[in-house]
Amino acid sequence: MNINAERLWNREQEVGEYGRDPRGGISRFAWTPEYREAATLLMKWMEEAGLKVRVDTVGNIYGRYEGMEDLPPVLTGSHFDTVPMGGKFDGLAGVMTALEVLTSMHEQGYKPKRPIEMIAFINEEASQFLGGHFGSKAICGMLPNDYATTSIDRNTGKSMKQAMLEYDMGLEPDNFEGSFIKEGDYFAFIEVHIEQGKYLLNKGLPLAVIDGIAGIKQFYITYYGESAHAGGMAMEDRHDSFAAAAETACEVEKLALNSGSPTRGTVGYVNVEPNEHNIVANKATISVDFREIEDDIWQRLYDDLILFVEKQCAKRGLSYDIKSTINTEPCLCNSRLKKIIAESTEENTVLYMHMISYPAHDAMQMGRLFPMGMIFLRSSNGGVSHCPDEFTTKDDLAAGANVLYTTIRKICEMDDII
Amino acid sequence: MNINAERLWNREQEVGEYGRDPRGGISRFAWTPEYREAATLLMKWMEEAGLKVRVDTVGNIYGRYEGMEDLPPVLTGSHFDTVPMGGKFDGLAGVMTALEVLTSMHEQGYKPKRPIEMIAFINEEASQFLGGHFGSKAICGMLPNDYATTSIDRNTGKSMKQAMLEYDMGLEPDNFEGSFIKEGDYFAFIEVHIEQGKYLLNKGLPLAVIDGIAGIKQFYITYYGESAHAGGMAMEDRHDSFAAAAETACEVEKLALNSGSPTRGTVGYVNVEPNEHNIVANKATISVDFREIEDDIWQRLYDDLILFVEKQCAKRGLSYDIKSTINTEPCLCNSRLKKIIAESTEENTVLYMHMISYPAHDAMQMGRLFPMGMIFLRSSNGGVSHCPDEFTTKDDLAAGANVLYTTIRKICEMDDII
Repeated sequence: MNINAERLWNREQEVGEYGRDPRGGISRFAWTPEYREAATLLMKWMEEAGLKVRVDTVGNIYGRYEGMEDLPPVLTGSHFDTVPMGGKFDGLAGVMTALEVLTSMHEQGYKPKRPIEMIAFINEEASQFLGGHFGSKAICGMLPNDYATTSIDRNTGKSMKQAMLEYDMGLEPDNFEGSFIKEGDYFAFIEVHIEQGKYLLNKGLPLAVIDGIAGIKQFYITYYGESAHAGGMAMEDRHDSFAAAAETACEVEKLALNSGSPTRGTVGYVNVEPNEHNIVANKATISVDFREIEDDIWQRLYDDLILFVEKQCAKRGLSYDIKSTINTEPCLCNSRLKKIIAESTEENTVLYMHMISYPAHDAMQMGRLFPMGMIFLRSSNGGVSHCPDEFTTKDDLAAGANVLYTTIRKICEMDDII
Repeated sequence: MNINAERLWNREQEVGEYGRDPRGGISRFAWTPEYREAATLLMKWMEEAGLKVRVDTVGNIYGRYEGMEDLPPVLTGSHFDTVPMGGKFDGLAGVMTALEVLTSMHEQGYKPKRPIEMIAFINEEASQFLGGHFGSKAICGMLPNDYATTSIDRNTGKSMKQAMLEYDMGLEPDNFEGSFIKEGDYFAFIEVHIEQGKYLLNKGLPLAVIDGIAGIKQFYITYYGESAHAGGMAMEDRHDSFAAAAETACEVEKLALNSGSPTRGTVGYVNVEPNEHNIVANKATISVDFREIEDDIWQRLYDDLILFVEKQCAKRGLSYDIKSTINTEPCLCNSRLKKIIAESTEENTVLYMHMISYPAHDAMQMGRLFPMGMIFLRSSNGGVSHCPDEFTTKDDLAAGANVLYTTIRKICEMDDII
């Protein structure tokens, strides 16, 4: 074993504890005091591993392990924040395996050809603010300049700018540009993340090599009809917004099941007005979440659903609007990196499978700029995630760190990725 | 014209104003201070019309107009409470037309063979407490003895018993029995009510003779599944409670449309947990409201839907439960009374149509004990009801009172109703 499984596990538990929520689980949100405490501990460990640590203008933490030559570094890491009442593995597993790999290399006196950097992305879950993947999007220049001013904490009403200033780590909420990275800055990006599903668990495998991250279309459809007494109004005279929403939810499922690809389609949010048992609803909103790895299918799902929505409106005398919240194209992993991860897995005698990631990750943004690879670790406890019961075993975490170690070493010695 | 249209309109406006809600419309709930004020004014007018006024143990107000003979009286009236932010006509139109008829008879010195009584039912809408038609159900012995103790105001947490005592009109919340009426106590019951629909409006008619009140099956279906990440979980491995609820809502509509009768089927209430766009819902509840006039169809709708629910559970690996809130058989109006109302309408040169009432009314309870007839008045403003815009014109209200006047006079002189 190239890494120290015990240290990795203990640090995961120790730093993962920050943000303990009295309601259960961990709520460690970006730029909060508990996030700051956890980040301070992380940076202490990073420095102990000989890393040159820096915090960018928005709060992402970088640590640089020097190489023999001044080449674009290999970057690895994941996010450091949690959902409300989340666990200790989502995001953190990728940060701590990266730290463990570099700590071990430091102990071993390993001198790579290329520099290696680790990163702890901030605000990926964006639990207080709408829109996820903040840290990786910010550094890729995907957010508007006034984003920190206009983003408001949905619980406290505080702006992101204020939260960033109160964080007191020298952030510059009006200077996202200072955090930008661009093509060529890094040689490759590798992210380790827990699966957040039960497929590895069901197959009895500790690890997956990811083929790509599904594209997401996430939007809200609102139908506008007319409220009416459930008794007073004949069926044929209704403008029933929820009847349309229910049919649309059924259609989302049908489109996903019949796409010709393992598409996922979910309606998880519903809001009906006035929401009374004896009143035909005048307004009904549903969320739609499509995830699909093939570009053309990903696009078609949305188009087909909108046609359906328009037919519902014509049939029922309704109007509708759409509010799009996520519209992210699928992102394939680099083939050469996939092969290297697979080889590293075999060299560590870790069994694996290939898998598509349907959840999105910071790797998606990185994958638009650099060759990108991803490793999933088995989620135990039935594969649950985003909850206090989220769990990955000590052995699986160590296996992930080992595979990451071997993978990073191989990439560091490469001249190019073809 | 037998009645005073001006007085009727003015009184409807005056007493209807009690419970003015700063958010809009009228919120006059049973046993509140504003209800008490309105009731006090009503009773003053009743006494001025020579009626012998009494309040029963639960708060229904009776007024007796003596007849020449000691025979079972004719009873007429409706409810005196409103929905939250309701209007001035739902319920009140039936109380005020009854009062106007008796006031006019008193002025005219009319001496009927049978006594006539009017009634203002309490808590029909049951806006604070679950379960409607309280006043009429209580006097028919349809409620359990401890009902006032166990019914809790959903806004304040106060028990119905406490509300009845604070009402300070000598009510006896532990003595529902003191309010009971039984078969033979009354000769007939007639209720005037607004349509709460737009069928009279669309046909250009002021009034309808009701053929019967549809039976209601109102219940809540809750599906229990498993929450899962919208990305992480493949379609075929989900236990998606809302997908089942959406299909069930579609089935409710299909069953209503294909029943072979003008059935009404409504899903107006939906609750989904955790109700997040990226989480498959582990729990979904919908309300179902079926209204149907034919006994066998009324029963079959429910049975067919439960079969569908069980299939959904088998298909998706869910469990379910049902909470029934209303289960009321259809109630036909008395044929002889229908004919008398129709004749009275013609004698007053008021145009009319026949109609089924899909909303339930206090008349439904009365109809189980006595021959029952109902008159609907045109709802203007697109037929809306249970909202501030609820409206019936002065002329239509007067037409209703005139027809009621003639109807009551005819019934008072009858020896029996066959």
